[in-house]
Amino acid sequence: MLPPLLSPLSDGPLGNEREVDTRNEKPSGDSYHANGPSDSEVWSEPRRPRLSFSDTVHSADYYMQEAKRLKHKADALMDKFGKAVNYADGALSFIDCGNAMERDPLEAKSPYTMYSETVELIRYAMRLKNFASHSATVAEKKLAVLCNRCLSLLYLRMFHLKKDHAVKYSRSLMEYFKNSAKTSHQAPSPWRTNGNPSPASSVGGGAGGGSGGAPGSSGSVAIPQRIHHMAASHVNITNNILRSYEHWETADRLASDSQEFFQELDSAMEPLSQQSSMTELVRYIRQGLHWLRSEAHLL
Amino acid sequence: MLPPLLSPLSDGPLGNEREVDTRNEKPSGDSYHANGPSDSEVWSEPRRPRLSFSDTVHSADYYMQEAKRLKHKADALMDKFGKAVNYADGALSFIDCGNAMERDPLEAKSPYTMYSETVELIRYAMRLKNFASHSATVAEKKLAVLCNRCLSLLYLRMFHLKKDHAVKYSRSLMEYFKNSAKTSHQAPSPWRTNGNPSPASSVGGGAGGGSGGAPGSSGSVAIPQRIHHMAASHVNITNNILRSYEHWETADRLASDSQEFFQELDSAMEPLSQQSSMTELVRYIRQGLHWLRSEAHLL
Repeated sequence: MLPPLLSPLSDGPLGNEREVDTRNEKPSGDSYHANGPSDSEVWSEPRRPRLSFSDTVHSADYYMQEAKRLKHKADALMDKFGKAVNYADGALSFIDCGNAMERDPLEAKSPYTMYSETVELIRYAMRLKNFASHSATVAEKKLAVLCNRCLSLLYLRMFHLKKDHAVKYSRSLMEYFKNSAKTSHQAPSPWRTNGNPSPASSVGGGAGGGSGGAPGSSGSVAIPQRIHHMAASHVNITNNILRSYEHWETADRLASDSQEFFQELDSAMEPLSQQSSMTELVRYIRQGLHWLRSEAHLL
Repeated sequence: MLPPLLSPLSDGPLGNEREVDTRNEKPSGDSYHANGPSDSEVWSEPRRPRLSFSDTVHSADYYMQEAKRLKHKADALMDKFGKAVNYADGALSFIDCGNAMERDPLEAKSPYTMYSETVELIRYAMRLKNFASHSATVAEKKLAVLCNRCLSLLYLRMFHLKKDHAVKYSRSLMEYFKNSAKTSHQAPSPWRTNGNPSPASSVGGGAGGGSGGAPGSSGSVAIPQRIHHMAASHVNITNNILRSYEHWETADRLASDSQEFFQELDSAMEPLSQQSSMTELVRYIRQGLHWLRSEAHLL
């Protein structure tokens, strides 16, 4: 039974951590360790220390304990940059945990919830200071890039976990809006007012765009409960993909200030893409955070 | 001023083509031509003839004429497979045309409309025969893979062209559903019936999932016109991304029957990804269609 990682309503990651027993936490040394320039990959000359990652797969609980250890480390820090780096590191273990939960489902929590709470943790870390602002240091911007990549692929994964529902709702909703457009042209309901075509209809995107209800943006339309529920769920699920693209683009924009750093990271780890697995994401970001730490002398 | 490529309501690509003047059509020879085994790329041994593509950029009108030429060729054919291959080839020139329209906008038609009509043309070609069925030949399944990749990246491009609207609508709709959930818990409107929680709410995907309106799936909810319009537009735009994933997965599934063919195509052309440009898409599919033709002795 896993305690909630971070309630979206709590005012910070200290929120639900009081009851955690840290005595039986396992060491993290075996999952990855620093590697000097004795790196064996010959196709690039590593100027920064490479981590080597073990392929040992652990239980969700293992990663949860590891994540809490890193999060508590962050909670205890004062320096905002070091704190954010450690929260991001903790978030990676929460992602490992969600990934393990996808392999071995737990009753206590769904992978979707684990990922969405991890999103909250990363957002919290990024709110400590505006690491993406013009006044931010190069190191802070690099951290912002790594966090945005994380958020983008987390939102994408969350979208995929609910995609089948979205497809089902999308079909029903498109059918409903098509019919409601027809009927509204035949017999306007008392809830509708007539007026000029709504701007929405001009950006509807193909057949039936913005065609729900009669033209005019005042007045109201009576829709079935079922449709209202579906629309709410559909908006929530598809919001994940929109957020994913938003954070991907933000990361691309910020990365242009540190091209050399991210080129070396790409050649060390395989560049991230929207097809990257959660494991590839965790390793890429963890390597990046390790370099950020060593450059900021936080090791 | 471009005539519509294909009205979704017409019963086939012959629909709007009667008025087309084919006399001043330009030859296609200069845009790509077949290459023998004298292919210079040493990193793979080409067993199939490679096309070499010129980087010359033409006007939207050039590609439109080229597309019509290929489409008329298809219209004239009897054999369903050869017909579908030629419609697919024509679709590629319509994609080139849409891509040129993105560079140099035309008043007559938006790139979005050009791409969505191209989707209709490919769908028409795929309805000629069920090329994806179990009884389909290997060549027919290869064609189905190429068409599904095309549809997937066309839908993705269409989504990107409208993404900013979707983001705007998504924000407003999430805000609306959040508030409507609050108010519905405080003061149920006369349009709502009480009952058990709707199944939708359990799959809402994070905060506010399926929370629009009161629980219960009967009865109706009065929503503002503005929201009704936005929801219709939002569903239409996000439907593109859902379709894109659907066709991508279908292509992956069907491609497993012709691994060797697609491995050679990938090594000849760079594998397609969701980051591929419209130009990369056109070249990849065109090379694939060329191989299909040569294997079916349609050259």
